[in-house]
Parts: sequence; structure tokens; C-alpha cells
Amino acid sequence: MRFNKVVMVGELNLDAEHQKQLEKSTERKVSATDISSAGPDLADSDALFIGFGIKVDRTVIDSAPKLKYIGVYATAYDFVDTEYAKSKGIAVCNLGGYSTEGVAEFVFAAVLDNFRNLDRAKERIGKNDTDFLPSELAKNREIKGKLFGVVGLGKIGSRVSEIAMGFGADVRYWSRNRKKELESRGIKYEAASSLVSKADILSLHLAVTNETEGFLNADRIKKIKKGAVLVSTVGLSLIDANALEARLKNNDMTLILELSEVPAEQVNKWKGYKNCVLYPPVALTYESLAARQRIFVENVERFLKGKPQNKVN
Amino acid sequence: MRFNKVVMVGELNLDAEHQKQLEKSTERKVSATDISSAGPDLADSDALFIGFGIKVDRTVIDSAPKLKYIGVYATAYDFVDTEYAKSKGIAVCNLGGYSTEGVAEFVFAAVLDNFRNLDRAKERIGKNDTDFLPSELAKNREIKGKLFGVVGLGKIGSRVSEIAMGFGADVRYWSRNRKKELESRGIKYEAASSLVSKADILSLHLAVTNETEGFLNADRIKKIKKGAVLVSTVGLSLIDANALEARLKNNDMTLILELSEVPAEQVNKWKGYKNCVLYPPVALTYESLAARQRIFVENVERFLKGKPQNKVN
Repeated sequence: MRFNKVVMVGELNLDAEHQKQLEKSTERKVSATDISSAGPDLADSDALFIGFGIKVDRTVIDSAPKLKYIGVYATAYDFVDTEYAKSKGIAVCNLGGYSTEGVAEFVFAAVLDNFRNLDRAKERIGKNDTDFLPSELAKNREIKGKLFGVVGLGKIGSRVSEIAMGFGADVRYWSRNRKKELESRGIKYEAASSLVSKADILSLHLAVTNETEGFLNADRIKKIKKGAVLVSTVGLSLIDANALEARLKNNDMTLILELSEVPAEQVNKWKGYKNCVLYPPVALTYESLAARQRIFVENVERFLKGKPQNKVN
Repeated sequence: MRFNKVVMVGELNLDAEHQKQLEKSTERKVSATDISSAGPDLADSDALFIGFGIKVDRTVIDSAPKLKYIGVYATAYDFVDTEYAKSKGIAVCNLGGYSTEGVAEFVFAAVLDNFRNLDRAKERIGKNDTDFLPSELAKNREIKGKLFGVVGLGKIGSRVSEIAMGFGADVRYWSRNRKKELESRGIKYEAASSLVSKADILSLHLAVTNETEGFLNADRIKKIKKGAVLVSTVGLSLIDANALEARLKNNDMTLILELSEVPAEQVNKWKGYKNCVLYPPVALTYESLAARQRIFVENVERFLKGKPQNKVN
């Protein structure tokens, strides 16, 4: 089976090889730079491939009566009205899991960079000043034995927990559902507020939804342990930014923030805090970029064979 | 039991609390800046505490006929003639294991810093230029699935292997003796030359002895895989530096080198290579510095109770 007509909107970073493979599944394809100009083409298309953030609402769906499939080139899909699509018999498939390892390993890259003061170390090499005093080395810290709190035990949170176990941390989690399999391997469940107040390292891996928004509210932020490191690779949606800024001003904890979707004003405001380490969206890797393309094409092929994968509605 | 007279030579970084605890085990103590000026005091001392690198040879040992104990404030002890000391009934105790975790975690800090191009990422934040092209992100790499080679499966090598397993690497080792317990957990044995040629990441953890010196000879260095990362936290004694420099010039592999005991000329020469990441001796941490003092004092107490620990001869 093939799609008769595919409309492609937004950034789909497919290389020549994956483009070619995708063409085996499509009779005809049309590209549009934005969804509003795709209107006429949608009227007779049976598939829509969209990049990150392309808004597919009721109006778009109603303009495409033959649509059977929406392929989202991202993990997030909150910009698609998946429920309405479902009511029209349209499958929405995302890139579930392509960035799991890239994000999980990034958490440790960033925490270890901070714990081991690598910037200072490399700067000193540059200055030929390589004798460190014990008082300087005493600022280096280890992950082993620390209480490593993981909020949200989905794919990424689970991998973060497993890696932290390898380091010998005391790994505890809070998630909406208990995960008995991980608990059997020594990852302990802890109530959300208790976890926030006890953790030496606290890493956020909740999906951003109406339910989880504001998870780290002002009250919980006040309770974050002195000297703790908070890591967010999911932006600021889970966090009360004002309350967190008050803690940054107090200079008694560290924030490591990966910036996808964080407003520029916020970035500029927080850049000045020494205890706030900002990273641009660099959690992706060679491996995850390759997986992204492979999974997008596989989703299409599996759907056409009647065995959809990564269907989110 | 207490020592009658202790001679202390070299750097012993004990804080007030540990000094005080140590005094419970000693009648009298004398400090000397170098071993040659300690001569007269050694004549009637029963214990000698030395810092890193203080040479205790036959002459020194012969000048101390009442000596029963040499406490070394380091893991290395190749500067002490342990065999001759043994023949005179003198126990030599070192700080075995105090830095295990500090060094093992440093390996991952340094590898991840390199794999994730954290310097570039932070520089771009500074410039407010946070849009990364896929071609830029494709330079980020993951540990998962890589062949992670560990040379030497002592305390540090074993911990490096375990952490690498947590990351989901294909962990293989070479060591003088097979380690069945670690093999049962999925860490595979590989012949030394084969390991060197297959590894994507190769981390050296052999003790530097006559047997192991030059482990990474010119022939093996030529066989290191293109694109591989070589990590040495044990200086250059295991490595043919000229052969490695030829590979650095070729720019087809990366060296991460922690510098304890690497001559300054070498450092200045290699600083210019982009694929050579040099770190000053920063593998120590708050935790290991604390453990160092605790173990030194414990060694003394255990010896005096007739139950020596960390005895190396």
C-alpha cells in the first residue's frame, strides 16, 4: 500500500536516503511552507507530514476529508488536535523515543561538568597553572552516594535512573504510576514533595501536560535542599520561574537548564546568575538524529501495513 | 598501643580533626621537609609518615633500625623500597582505594564533555546564538552502544566498567587476570591488542609498574580505531608519547589526558592539538579528599591493633 497524496509542512530533516525510502510509500507529494497555504492540497490528500510546532486544529482537519494519517516529525504533539483527529479516524504518529538516550546522557554530561568544575580545570591548563590546592579540589563532587531524584519515570526518566544506579547514587523517583520493575532493581518510590526536598540532584522528566504544569510550584521550590542541583531538559513549563529566580538570587542551589522553548528574555535575565548553567537545545546527538529519520519512515511503513507504531491517539 | 616517635616527611594534608585523632596514636612526632634531613630523627623512630613521592630507599631504611611502620599518604608507593622494608619487618601501608570513585566518575565527566561539545554549547549561549543546525548537533555522540574498552580491571577499572554498563555501552576489558564476577555481569574479556584496535572509547587503568610500562606501544597506537577517544588518568607511562603524537597530528582520534606527573614540556607541546584535551590533576573530589584522611588515620589505628589494612608489602 502507498499513500495517494502526501502534503508536507514544516521542517522535516530527512536526508536523501530516507527521502528515497519514504517515496516508496507515496504516489505523490506536495510541500508547503505553512499550514494555511496547504489548504487546497489538503482537500484530496490522505497523509500529512508535519514538522515541530505546525498547528493542526479542527479547521485544518475539516479541510482534509480524505486524511488518514498525520506523521509528526517530533516527540511533542501538543500542537495537533489528536482527539478530533481520532474522531475522524485519523491516526497521529510521533517520533516516540528517538531522543531517549541523547537526553538521558546529556543530563549526566551537564551534572558532571558542574560537579567536576571542568571549565575551571581547562582554563587553568591554558594558564599553565595546574597546581590545585586541596581546598580547590574539595569543590569537586561525586554522584556516588548522592540522593538522585528523578521526576517522571517514562522512557527518558527510566534511562536516567538506570545510569544513576551505575554511578552508585541513591536513586529515587516520583511518577504518576508506580514502576515495580524498576523498583525491583533498587530505584525507590518517594512522594513528590518529599523527593523535591531530599534530592541532592533532581532531574525533571515529566511530559508537559495540563496536569503536570507547575509541578515545581513556589512551595516546592522553597523546599529544594541547599546545595542541590536541579536539572530541567523540559524547559520551564513545570517550574514557577519567579520562585526559582528567588532561589537563584539566594545562591544556595544550582540550576542546569536546557533551553528548547525557553523565552529569550528569560535566558538573558538568568545568564547573569553564576549558579544557573544554561545550555542551548543540544540534547540531540548523531545517534538520535539518525533514529529520528529511521523512526519517521518506519512509522509510515508500519501504518500502511496495518500495524501502526508510535500512534498517540 | 601507640608509636613512640613518628617522623613526618612531605605533604600530609590532614585537617585539624584528623591531626588530633592521629595524635592519639603517637607519643611524639617530628616533622622534616625532606628525607635527607630526617636522618638523625629516624635513628630512634618506630614510624615514618610520608607524602607522595618521598623516596624511601635502602639507605633510609638502614638509618631507621627501630622502624615498624611506613604510612604513605598516596595510592602510589613505587618511591618506597617495599621489598627491602618487608625484609626488615617494616609494614608499608598506602591509601588504597580512596580515589576510586573520584577517578572513575572523572572519566565519564571528561568523555561526556567531549562527546557533547559542552564548551561550544556554552559559548553559543554567551553569544545568544542558540539555534543549532542538525549538522552541528550531529557532532554530539552517545556512549550507549559504543565499544568501551577498559585496560586494567582493578578497583578503578572495575567501577569504570560498571558505570559504562549503566550507560548501555558494549563494555570489554583486558587485565592480567580474568575477572569472572564482572564477566558474569556482561563485561567481556578481550585480548589486549584486539581491545585497543576495536574500542571506540579506551580508558587506561593499569597500575604503572615495570611490567605495564609501554603497554600502549607504537604498534598498538597505530591500531587505535579512527575516531576513537583514548582516556588516560595514569599519565603517559603506559604510552609511547612519540607514536601518540603522530596520531594527534593525523587528527583521526582524540586523547583525553589527566596530567598528574606529565612533564610541563609535553603539556605545552600538546596543548596546541585540538584533538588533545588536557586536564590538570583534578580527579580528586571532596569525597575522596575526606576518604584520604580517614583511611590514613585508620591505617595507623589498625596497624597498632595488630590488624593492618592497606598493607602493600
